[in-house]
Amino acid sequence: MTESAPAPAPEAAPLRRGRGRRTRTEAAGTRDRILAVARAEFSERGYEKTSVRGIAKAAGVDSALVHHYFGTKEQVFEAAVEVAFSPALNARDMILDGPLDDVGERLTRMVFGLWENPVTRTPLLAIVRSAVNNETAAAVFRRLVAAQLMRRIADQLDTPDAQLRAELAAAQLVGIAMLRYVIKIEPVASADPEQIIARVAPVVQGHLTGP
Amino acid sequence: MTESAPAPAPEAAPLRRGRGRRTRTEAAGTRDRILAVARAEFSERGYEKTSVRGIAKAAGVDSALVHHYFGTKEQVFEAAVEVAFSPALNARDMILDGPLDDVGERLTRMVFGLWENPVTRTPLLAIVRSAVNNETAAAVFRRLVAAQLMRRIADQLDTPDAQLRAELAAAQLVGIAMLRYVIKIEPVASADPEQIIARVAPVVQGHLTGP
Repeated sequence: MTESAPAPAPEAAPLRRGRGRRTRTEAAGTRDRILAVARAEFSERGYEKTSVRGIAKAAGVDSALVHHYFGTKEQVFEAAVEVAFSPALNARDMILDGPLDDVGERLTRMVFGLWENPVTRTPLLAIVRSAVNNETAAAVFRRLVAAQLMRRIADQLDTPDAQLRAELAAAQLVGIAMLRYVIKIEPVASADPEQIIARVAPVVQGHLTGP
Repeated sequence: MTESAPAPAPEAAPLRRGRGRRTRTEAAGTRDRILAVARAEFSERGYEKTSVRGIAKAAGVDSALVHHYFGTKEQVFEAAVEVAFSPALNARDMILDGPLDDVGERLTRMVFGLWENPVTRTPLLAIVRSAVNNETAAAVFRRLVAAQLMRRIADQLDTPDAQLRAELAAAQLVGIAMLRYVIKIEPVASADPEQIIARVAPVVQGHLTGP
């Protein structure tokens, strides 16, 4: 909350038009390492208990470099979790290009794919654990999930309550993620994804295009 | 995590077979005040950041008295949030006594009733905010929601995958609670409950008794 504004470029700042020692590739590597550490910290500890200083320390860089690359703690958080949503945002064309009458199954499979993949599961856990306890993280969730992903889906539906429908469909998927991956209630936590998808895809479809 | 075991009865312990100064009614009042404070603290701060000492201080009693009434921090938490589930557990007969073909609507209305009522919304927020970040609180959630409420509903269903069906129905309701009451995404956060119930009750029904 009291994070300072983006710091001026620290000594080790990369990409100094050939004068610094770091190459563009090295800088990208450092940036990616900071993001990976940030994702791990946010997903284990939640937004409030994670600090830019802690991320910098775990990544082996100075805090100023983290601020230089990303800005405030909120911006570090958004950059760290965005990786989980960029496949979803890129996939929306894939989802929406197909026939609307199986969009429920395609959307459900995409969401399960993100949660079952450890690379994207970590930032998803980070945003869920953070958004329920912290208003800044909740705002990021609203921007990424509601304003971008659900709005784009709703835009494809030709009904006045399209956004509400998209959110009720999302609620079914968010609730399953909560019970399966976060709180780990059995049997849903260990059930075969295909068994769940077979039951849930028609529900998502019904919310989006049903009567 | 490192809470001590229930303390021996402190000096102010009530109900000492007529020798103490407090009456049974006063003791019940103190107990209720501690629970109300605990609910408020857990729902605002989550499990980890809430301490028995802080609850005792806000309730104007000694920590030892809190331990005397409830035991460990985990037991204080469980007692504090149980109030939200006891109507649900009591209501299960009401839910399950009626015809099975509108159990979806009755269950959905009961859950909305609990969330729309500020008295039960506070402990529900407490358990959601705590369970996503803390394994002890998640275990309480699993005991209250999965083992008691969902199991009892599943017992009424005559299918081999009854428990999974009950959990997918619960997931729809948990997801709506997350988006509407916790993360507050529009339009679902401000929509008329009846508009949501009309869409969601058939989904819950379908999970429980559908093909």
